[in-house]
This record gives sequence, structure tokens and C-alpha cells, in this order.
Amino acid sequence: MADSAPTVPAALTTDAPLAIHSKQTVDPWNVSGETGADGVVKAINYHTLIEEFGTKKILEEDLVRFEKVTGHRPHRFMRRGIVFSHRDLNYILDRYERGEPFFLYTGRGPSSDSMHIGHTVPFEFTKLMSHRWLQDVFDVPLIIMLTDDEKYLFSESREIEDVQKYTAANVKDIIAIGFDPKKTFIFSDYEFMGGEFYKNVTRIQKKTTLNVAKAIFGFDGDFGAIQGATAFASSFPHIFGSDKSISSKIPSLIPCAIDQDPYFRMTRDVAHRLHFAKPALIHARFLDALQGPGSKMSASIDTSAIFMYDEPNKIRTKINKYAFSGGQVTEEEQRAKGGDTDKDVSYQYLTFFLEDDEELERIRVAYTTGKMLTGELKAKCIAELQVYVKGFQERRAAVTDELVEDFFSQKKLVFRGNPHPIAAAKEEVPEGSSDGPKELTKNQLKKLAKEKMIEEKRLAKLKEKEQKQAGDAIA
Amino acid sequence: MADSAPTVPAALTTDAPLAIHSKQTVDPWNVSGETGADGVVKAINYHTLIEEFGTKKILEEDLVRFEKVTGHRPHRFMRRGIVFSHRDLNYILDRYERGEPFFLYTGRGPSSDSMHIGHTVPFEFTKLMSHRWLQDVFDVPLIIMLTDDEKYLFSESREIEDVQKYTAANVKDIIAIGFDPKKTFIFSDYEFMGGEFYKNVTRIQKKTTLNVAKAIFGFDGDFGAIQGATAFASSFPHIFGSDKSISSKIPSLIPCAIDQDPYFRMTRDVAHRLHFAKPALIHARFLDALQGPGSKMSASIDTSAIFMYDEPNKIRTKINKYAFSGGQVTEEEQRAKGGDTDKDVSYQYLTFFLEDDEELERIRVAYTTGKMLTGELKAKCIAELQVYVKGFQERRAAVTDELVEDFFSQKKLVFRGNPHPIAAAKEEVPEGSSDGPKELTKNQLKKLAKEKMIEEKRLAKLKEKEQKQAGDAIA
Repeated sequence: MADSAPTVPAALTTDAPLAIHSKQTVDPWNVSGETGADGVVKAINYHTLIEEFGTKKILEEDLVRFEKVTGHRPHRFMRRGIVFSHRDLNYILDRYERGEPFFLYTGRGPSSDSMHIGHTVPFEFTKLMSHRWLQDVFDVPLIIMLTDDEKYLFSESREIEDVQKYTAANVKDIIAIGFDPKKTFIFSDYEFMGGEFYKNVTRIQKKTTLNVAKAIFGFDGDFGAIQGATAFASSFPHIFGSDKSISSKIPSLIPCAIDQDPYFRMTRDVAHRLHFAKPALIHARFLDALQGPGSKMSASIDTSAIFMYDEPNKIRTKINKYAFSGGQVTEEEQRAKGGDTDKDVSYQYLTFFLEDDEELERIRVAYTTGKMLTGELKAKCIAELQVYVKGFQERRAAVTDELVEDFFSQKKLVFRGNPHPIAAAKEEVPEGSSDGPKELTKNQLKKLAKEKMIEEKRLAKLKEKEQKQAGDAIA
Repeated sequence: MADSAPTVPAALTTDAPLAIHSKQTVDPWNVSGETGADGVVKAINYHTLIEEFGTKKILEEDLVRFEKVTGHRPHRFMRRGIVFSHRDLNYILDRYERGEPFFLYTGRGPSSDSMHIGHTVPFEFTKLMSHRWLQDVFDVPLIIMLTDDEKYLFSESREIEDVQKYTAANVKDIIAIGFDPKKTFIFSDYEFMGGEFYKNVTRIQKKTTLNVAKAIFGFDGDFGAIQGATAFASSFPHIFGSDKSISSKIPSLIPCAIDQDPYFRMTRDVAHRLHFAKPALIHARFLDALQGPGSKMSASIDTSAIFMYDEPNKIRTKINKYAFSGGQVTEEEQRAKGGDTDKDVSYQYLTFFLEDDEELERIRVAYTTGKMLTGELKAKCIAELQVYVKGFQERRAAVTDELVEDFFSQKKLVFRGNPHPIAAAKEEVPEGSSDGPKELTKNQLKKLAKEKMIEEKRLAKLKEKEQKQAGDAIA
């Protein structure tokens, strides 16, 4: 009925062997909590991430303002600290208050694996259906990017044709979460690359040298330029018009998992130098893997996650068999001491998927005081997940190719923004809007300092070459 | 009447100060002959380039075969060793003989500077008009690429809008040299990027790591992928159809100045690994700057070149004032010893632009035997250039925006290829078609060896990241 200390498959942890102490790692490719000397992986410490990344914690007062400005009660993800951090959220609220335009941007790297419940978090938070969330609260355009080119470039084995198959499947999964085609544009890089989008890609490439990318990503791929270009309204003239003096001032709000922050830190830095509006961000924590806190679900490890195609029985089996429990070893102990909801994966999942705050609180009290046993807690979790996944599967079955076409089509979008804006106040400059470099963490700034000299030499060399090359036929 | 030893402006020579001995440098950004201990820049040694680059000299027997296969007398550039080197030209002739398709690819980096007569050489050689050359001889599609994105990325100062203005002007200059819109597609990267072209760009990027690019270009820009993608027929489904099993087998023939060979060496290497037909190349030598052998015309130095917008008087003044002479110091000496046509810029220009072989030979004999004085030689050169430049200017004035549209439009092209093919023989594999790495020079292979280890580490890291990243939402 209860589990021993969590053992986390290596693939879910850092590169360091389990038994060896290792620090918490969170970046676009690695996510894992600190591994103690005992080899046990601790839960991700999200407060240290706020410090390390230099983001802002979402405070009670932010929630109060959010409700005041939007007239909507904050989403349970915000109420429960699942969406816990931001960059310039208040600037977006200022704009909404004044009825000034902005848009939402999220995305996904299409992969052969079916999505798991962890993948749905940013989309759930972004979407409007059932829980009626961000896109509906703000009633603004939503742009969803599918990075098929990155999935090809970064894969040793995949061909473009493979990745395009995944794109076709994944887009239906995303649509099944529930978005409004009238105000949503979904694109894949291979389909959309070109025009103003490509121009912005090269603008970013020119401003972010490979060395900056190296400092941020730890390797010299400059793919960030393509993810970055999607954060700029001028990449989408069919939505925001072709007058750059207007579109360049329209910012995006990017709901993303905290591990994606480095990409957009670079984008914010460049936006400043390109005189484009800086994207704002709200960061979600991760849904723990079944194996417990400190691990992240992996699309390639079936036993690490509940997948959106799992049948009800499979969901029951996975939760009962794998969901790490915060309960005590024996029923007696559990009755006496109660369980630990912070460590309990089933409870964590309920905080993500159970809408009713009072019900959740009843469960928390019952479990921590020993009135509720792990089996009962798991049963509640199983029931919630079965409903959630079943709903998804029904919507997924209803997604037609025509609907996909509609989302992909480069059409004008229909959105209202704030129906009752207040008189436009003097434009407030978002905090940190002129602090591009501050977007980098201390370590990255150190790395950059090192790279700077090399970089200047490189530029000098390029300039020289350019002069020599000026106007010469290439062939 | 005669000149002292040539003094070449620094901008036309290598980075080394004039007075210091320096080796010959020829790459896409630097072209200059060896500078002797005396500080005098020697003529480019094209034979050492053939060795260094690993290309093949165009031999008398190649010319004979060319005439036999095409039924056309070799262009004066070939007859006179101006087009002196190739890669797989015989493979292209094999295909032509069998009536198998291929296409011509040339291009230009649009710049603010007006084109000079040096820029026109690859186009003159490629075009069909007046001298009725390659495109007409073969009657195959011609693709002309304008690398506006590269000109933006590699410039410290230019904005995309600037580069696009240059593109609009430069394309009219190119059209004025004379091409057939029915079988020519001209595009700029900013206009054309996307679709199958972008897919091939990423295919090349994936196969050519930054380290390979570094080894070839000496810096880590991977722009070669975009120039490379244009060498593959599958980038142009509107011309070659969307069946890759066919288009991937259609090679290009790239007439280019020898300094551009490194780009396409990389492309040939990658083509092999992508199972695309390798592009073939024919290399032209440079038109010497007015200042003499060993220097290259510069679009940014007016006195280094005859520009296509120079008025007749300006042409006369430039030749009389700046054209380095191979003549003797006094008329008496010239009458006695005769002049040196190898060093004489006016004579060199005549070899490029005077079509009549017998007339050219009469001039050579008269000048080298002292019967002709430098003034008379310059007068003949001036007359030829005035006619050539005037003809260009008249055609340029006639280029309409509608005509430009026609060249830019993605339409089916009309071409016949070989009207009398011989029965298709067994497909001959182009020499070196499986020797991708051999396309690199010794130095580059050395550099590559060094880079290889780093590279393998990088790939291992990427693979690991990929596994972690698989299927994770990017935002």
C-alpha cells in the first residue's frame, strides 16, 4: 500500500549517476531535482529557479490584480502555484486594461510519441475550452508553433518526412485540447518558413551570435532564432497587418514550462535590440513523473506518465502500480501519522486536474491526518484522470482534416480584446525592458564575457570579408 | 606612356602589408596574388589553385569533346583559358549527350554598388544573348540566386530594407546582360525561402556541422547551406516537379569564379551524403583590376574597375590613366623590345571582350614585337569596352518591372535540352562522386580531423538532449 524511497529511472534524472550527489538541473533538455548523497532525487526547488533565471514570483497581489483587470478568477494553476513565475505579466495586464493588443504564443516540438498529461499543461492553461482559460479570458489571438524543423535538425535518425507525419498527428492532439479556430493560428516551421517570418529569423540571427547562443544553450545551435521570431507580431502580417510601426509594438504573452525560459530570455534580449516589443512570460512548474517529485514525465518512457491515449484500465494500473505515494508504510502508521501530500504523486495530479478547491482541501486534510489511505487517494486521482483523458479522446476523435486546415490557414483572426478598456494611460515601460543583457543569468553573463573577445574578433573578420566581398558575384 | 611597377591599393591585396612577402590568397572573401619581397603583387597562379582546390584543368581534349558534343565552338573564355578549371564537366557532357536533364546555376550577392565588368564575366559566360552562350548551347533551365539574406547577415550596417533595394536594382542589371525569361528563374532568398527549398537548406545544415563550415570557410557561419540548396533540383518543384526520385538525380552545372569553389566543394560533399546529384562546376579566372595582375576589381573602389554605368569618356580616362601597361618605359624601348601582354591590363581586357581571335592575335604580335605602342593598344581596349558597356546600358534602360516580375515568377520553364541525344548509355558515375571528403583540401582535412572529436562529443550531447526532449512541449 505504500512505497519505499522513490527510485527514478536514469533517463528521468540528470546525467550524474543516481548514487552520486548532483545539483538540480533545469534547462530545455534536462530537468531533475537535486540528487542527495543518499541517491534520492529531491523535488525541484522552484524558488531557486526564480533566483537563478531572474524571473518574478507570482504573488498574491498579482492574482488580485489579475482578477480585478480581467474580471476572471485566476486559473487553478495560478491559485495553486502551478503557474508560479513570470516576466512582465504586469505589463500585459496594463495593456489589457488599456485595451491595447497583444497575443498568446505557445508551441510544441512534434514527436512520434503521443502526448502525455504533462504535455497538456501549457495548452490547458492557454486554451479556452471547458475551463475557459487565457485565450478566452483575454480574447486575443493565439499562435501555436510546431517546430518540425528543429525536431529534424536535432535528431540523429529522423527524416523530414517522419517529422511531418508527427506534426500531422500532434496538431490534432493539440486541437483536441480545445481551441477556437477563429482566433488561433497553428503553423509548422516547414510550412510557414519564409516571408516576414524568415526576415525576423535572420534579424534575430544577426543580433544573437552563435556565442550568445552557446552561452545560453551550452551548444552552438542558433535555433533560438526561429522560436524567437514567433514571439514577434511582425512575423504574422496576415494577423497583425504589414505596418511594422504598429506590429513591432505588439507583444506576446508566452505560457510555458519553466525549462523553456532560456529560449525566450534570449528573445527578450534581442527584442530590445531590434526595437520589437519584448515577449512576456508566465512559467508553469512540471507535472511530476509517476516515479515522484524531482522527475519529469518522459514521452519515451511509458511507465513515467499517463498518456492521452491510455485506456481507463491502464490509467488505473499505472496509478496503482507506479504513482509514488506520500503515505506511510503500514495502514496503522498512516492512520497515526498521516501522509505527505507534497511527495504524493496522486495528490499532485489532483492539484493539476481537480477544479474544486474545497474538495481538494478536504482530500488534503483527510490524507495528511490519516483519515484517508493511499488507496482511496489513488482512486480519486484515477477517477479524475479517467474523465480528463476520456474527454480528450472524444474530442480527438472529432477532429477532422478540414478543421486542421482551418487552423493552419493564413486567415484574418477574429478577437475582441478587452471589451471595457480604461482610458489609455501613459505607456508604462515594462520593467527591465531596456535590460536585455540582464535577461541572462550570472553564469551566462560570465560565459558571455569570455566569448565577447572571440566574438569581436569574429565580427572584425566578417566586416573585413564583407568589404572585400562587397558587390562581388557569388558565382 | 608607360607605367612603373604596379602599386596596388591595399584593399585589393591580402591583409599583409604590401612591403612584406605574403602568399597568394584566393577564397570567397580574399583574392590576391603572391606579394614578393619587393612588395610587388604577382599575377594569380591559377595552376597552383587547381592543385590546392583539387579541381581539374580544362584541357585541349575537353574543348574538342565539348565542341563535338554540343556542336558549338567553345566560348572564347574557354578557348583562351579564362574558364580554365572544372569539376565533373565531363559528367554533364555525358548527360547532355544522352539527352538527360541538368540545369545551370549562378548568382550574385546584391550590393549597393553598380556592377563592374568583372561581375559580368560569369553572367556573360552563362547567358545566351549576343554571344549565344551556355544556356543557349545546352538549352536548359537557368537559376539565378540573389543572396540578399547573406548580404544582410554579413553586413554590420545594412538593414533588410537596404539589401532589398539593391536586389531590385541588381536584378535589372543581370537581366540587362541578357537572359531568356522562358527558361530562367531568378529569385532572392528573402522572396523564395520556404517550402522544398527550406527543407533542403535544413538537410544540408544537418549534414554539414558548423565545424565543417569552419574548416572550409574559417568561421562558423553556415550560410553555405542556402547557396548549397540552390544546387539541388528538388529545391524547385515548380521547375523540376515534386517527384524527388526524379529531381534528386538532376545535377546543376555552376559557372563561377574560382574563389567561389569552397562553397560548392561543401555542397558536393553533402550532395553525396544526401543522395542528391553532385553539382558540376566550371571555374573562371578573374578580370584583373586596372592596377594590374594579382589584384581583383573592387565594387567599392571606382578606380579599380570599369563600371557598367561608366560613360564613354570615363572609360577612356580610366584606361588611359589607370590601366597598368606591359609596355616599355620609352617609345624607343617599346619599338625595340616590345611589350609584355601577360602583364598588360588593356590586352587582358581584350582577351575577355574581343571575340575575333585573329584580330586579337594580330594585336598580340604587333604589341610584343614593338610595332604597336601602349597608346594604340589602350585605344583598341577603350573602343571594345565602350561598345560593350553601351550595349549593356541600352538593354538596361529597356528592362521593365513587368519583365522582372516574369523572371521572378514561379512558372514552368520552357527548354529542349539536347535535340539529338544518343541512345542512353549505362549511367556513368561522375569521377569522385563517392569521394565527398576528397572535395576538401589537405589543410581543410587537417582542420576537420581536429574538429572531429569535438564534433562527436557535440552530437552525443545532442542525441542525449533529444532523448530527454523527445515529445516535450516547447512552451
